[in-house]
Amino acid sequence: MKILLIGAAGTIGKAVAAELGQRHDIVAAGRKAGESVDIADIASVRAALARLGKLDAIVCAAGHVHFGPLAQMTPELYGIGLKDKLMGQVNLVLAGQEALADGGSFTLTSGVLTDDPIRAGSSASMVNGALEAFARAAAIELPRGLRINVISPTVLTESMAAYGAFFRGHKPVAASDVALAYAKSVEGAQTGQVFKVL
Amino acid sequence: MKILLIGAAGTIGKAVAAELGQRHDIVAAGRKAGESVDIADIASVRAALARLGKLDAIVCAAGHVHFGPLAQMTPELYGIGLKDKLMGQVNLVLAGQEALADGGSFTLTSGVLTDDPIRAGSSASMVNGALEAFARAAAIELPRGLRINVISPTVLTESMAAYGAFFRGHKPVAASDVALAYAKSVEGAQTGQVFKVL
Repeated sequence: MKILLIGAAGTIGKAVAAELGQRHDIVAAGRKAGESVDIADIASVRAALARLGKLDAIVCAAGHVHFGPLAQMTPELYGIGLKDKLMGQVNLVLAGQEALADGGSFTLTSGVLTDDPIRAGSSASMVNGALEAFARAAAIELPRGLRINVISPTVLTESMAAYGAFFRGHKPVAASDVALAYAKSVEGAQTGQVFKVL
Repeated sequence: MKILLIGAAGTIGKAVAAELGQRHDIVAAGRKAGESVDIADIASVRAALARLGKLDAIVCAAGHVHFGPLAQMTPELYGIGLKDKLMGQVNLVLAGQEALADGGSFTLTSGVLTDDPIRAGSSASMVNGALEAFARAAAIELPRGLRINVISPTVLTESMAAYGAFFRGHKPVAASDVALAYAKSVEGAQTGQVFKVL
């Protein structure tokens, strides 16, 4: 398969490339590395897809949200996550439908905070809940056997040095284990699912 | 209790007013009727709250999303629901925290499409999933015993003439039954919950 991987320079992205790259052609993309694309801008997504031609899968392990105490959040701060992690990934689906070959798949990324919130994480929870419900809905409308799933990882072992204080009591998972869920989505046949990696 | 009810002119709003109005003072609000407020504009929310003084509960049964086939959706069409039904209700929480008396509550409205999608409903699913996850997260950060819950009704009996074709096979519920869930949220003690009325 020819797989577009957005966020290829990130911790999850590198693990997904290592897992899926064993069997497939990975086109690495992101703001910082590989094929240049800003998912928050649907015109940038469309331009990248036009350059790349037909794809068998689009995987996104990118997306930014603002973390901050509820008492300090504003509509503008929620807007960061809505524009980037939420609509960025939705933009890939809107623009990517025509780029995918029959039976191709979208694999998006949410996270554990949908169901298991932490302090300062209300924007992440909001965006993750939105992505998971969107994917369940989009799955029943996608044409030509196209599929869509969401991977919901808990905090990564590799991220505990940076984020451990926010995730006390959460058992971290290795990025290589999270990458298996992306392989299940891309190489399996399920659709409309949220694969939790806890 | 003194309860601010946004969307008081709607089908759910009227039923909530009939239920809670038996025991409490209802301040009806909305774009069309009662106290004038546009929830999509946090300045409008702040102005209304400043006029009303201390409240014991804020209930929202308002919020618009665009329904349309996935293939015809655009970032702008998703933006309608994100700005109105999602951030409109979040604006009430952001601005309403200081207006609520100790132990006061927010009760927001999502809907069945979070988990049980229909064609043309991907924006509603997205927004509802976002609201439910936001409420779970906000619940653990609200101060002074403030609470927040979300009511998730399926299609209303009263709405079947207009929306029945979109909800084939869904068993409708009467708005008066949905109103009971709002009473459970306002008059009970739970927080961070999604009360489904199916």
